Amino acid sequence: MKIVIIGSGNVAYHLAKAFQENKIPVSQLFGRNENDLKFISEQLQVPFSATQLQDADLYLICVSDGSISEVSKLITKENCLVAHTSGSLPKEILEGNFRKASFYPLQTFSKSKDLDYKEVPFFVESDDDNDLELLKNLALHISKKVMISTYEKRKYIHLTAVFACNFVNHLFARAKEISDSQEIPFDYFLPLIKETTAKIEILEPKFAQTGPAIRNDERVLKAHEDLITDEEQLKIYKIMNESIKKMYEL
Amino acid sequence: MKIVIIGSGNVAYHLAKAFQENKIPVSQLFGRNENDLKFISEQLQVPFSATQLQDADLYLICVSDGSISEVSKLITKENCLVAHTSGSLPKEILEGNFRKASFYPLQTFSKSKDLDYKEVPFFVESDDDNDLELLKNLALHISKKVMISTYEKRKYIHLTAVFACNFVNHLFARAKEISDSQEIPFDYFLPLIKETTAKIEILEPKFAQTGPAIRNDERVLKAHEDLITDEEQLKIYKIMNESIKKMYEL
Repeated sequence: MKIVIIGSGNVAYHLAKAFQENKIPVSQLFGRNENDLKFISEQLQVPFSATQLQDADLYLICVSDGSISEVSKLITKENCLVAHTSGSLPKEILEGNFRKASFYPLQTFSKSKDLDYKEVPFFVESDDDNDLELLKNLALHISKKVMISTYEKRKYIHLTAVFACNFVNHLFARAKEISDSQEIPFDYFLPLIKETTAKIEILEPKFAQTGPAIRNDERVLKAHEDLITDEEQLKIYKIMNESIKKMYEL
Repeated sequence: MKIVIIGSGNVAYHLAKAFQENKIPVSQLFGRNENDLKFISEQLQVPFSATQLQDADLYLICVSDGSISEVSKLITKENCLVAHTSGSLPKEILEGNFRKASFYPLQTFSKSKDLDYKEVPFFVESDDDNDLELLKNLALHISKKVMISTYEKRKYIHLTAVFACNFVNHLFARAKEISDSQEIPFDYFLPLIKETTAKIEILEPKFAQTGPAIRNDERVLKAHEDLITDEEQLKIYKIMNESIKKMYEL
């Protein structure tokens, strides 16, 4: 099976790397940004092109949501399978007479950070049982966590990920603003952060909650509100504490 | 030096355990809850009492914020050092003619979860240089991260911890509500969560941000808002995205 990866961003890089590590040949990396393609190509020894899209059995489109539709039009071949890797778009966003699918890795990718692909959950979608089987088996070569999904389900997976990853990272960024303002090294908080996430591997997050809001400690909540000078920090502080109190009916 | 730990909760348990692991004898565990005291005493082979507070050089008060003042009144000895472990109260909350101090471990503790104490940052405060030295050296027997602090600084450390730990855990709890509602196992998200926190050890959180808000992806933001049926989830969703946009001036 000939596989072409389209894109040169974080997802394209890590998928190509995951395939390479598992001895699945990638026929071509295709994209617009020649510098990025060159970088990945040199790192992973995969041929690339910015002009000539190769013939393949499977095209994996790893570009930003807004470009998927346009990029898919470049695939004029009909007897092939095309999957995108977006968390939030239906496979029908793909435009062409090929077979359409979704191949969604649930992870946050950075080129500079190595990953254990075996632990990355993959969600695959297709209307065709053979294609589903093909994508499932392909993903199983990379990861031990492969699930068949639906678009409806994927929307919620993506939403959950926004809460558990994107918003969590933003809390870290806001927390660092506070510690920076007092010249307290943010490194001090890394063991606490590690433990916070380690805890939920053995304990449901709902039962791991600590802090002033769940203790209904109005003195500390008020003192913190007085301490915060940034408007956005204060909004987050209030909304999060209200939400904690509501969850535990305090 | 004779050390007495007052309290039988998570902090008392872990401090006693940290001392024991580092061969620092604890003369007595003192508290109200005999069952909890018995449990810790049996686990760690430390004598306990619920009635007779022993004479000591250092008392570490590990009880809830609201009880510290009352509990400190039980210490009638004058030539001794008394420290509490609260993140948010001044050492002056302690009532008595003894020397007053703060001994604050920056960590989230659960009895059921083992910890590497070497990585737990300790913040110590006292008006007396000798006491400061004593507490610093004591903490250095447990941890390699010991800092002298002030009450002013500790307030901000605690506030930062609320953002980076308490609120983060609450986001996990809210995320789990969403995945539970669609019968998506929350386990699927653990690799993503692990990676989110692993990333900020090598990358500033501000530069690790991903997700629809930083891409200013109005389509996804709107679609998610339409997907959310819970009022608290929706408030968090909106406030967090607004805050992300503000941080990056989108």
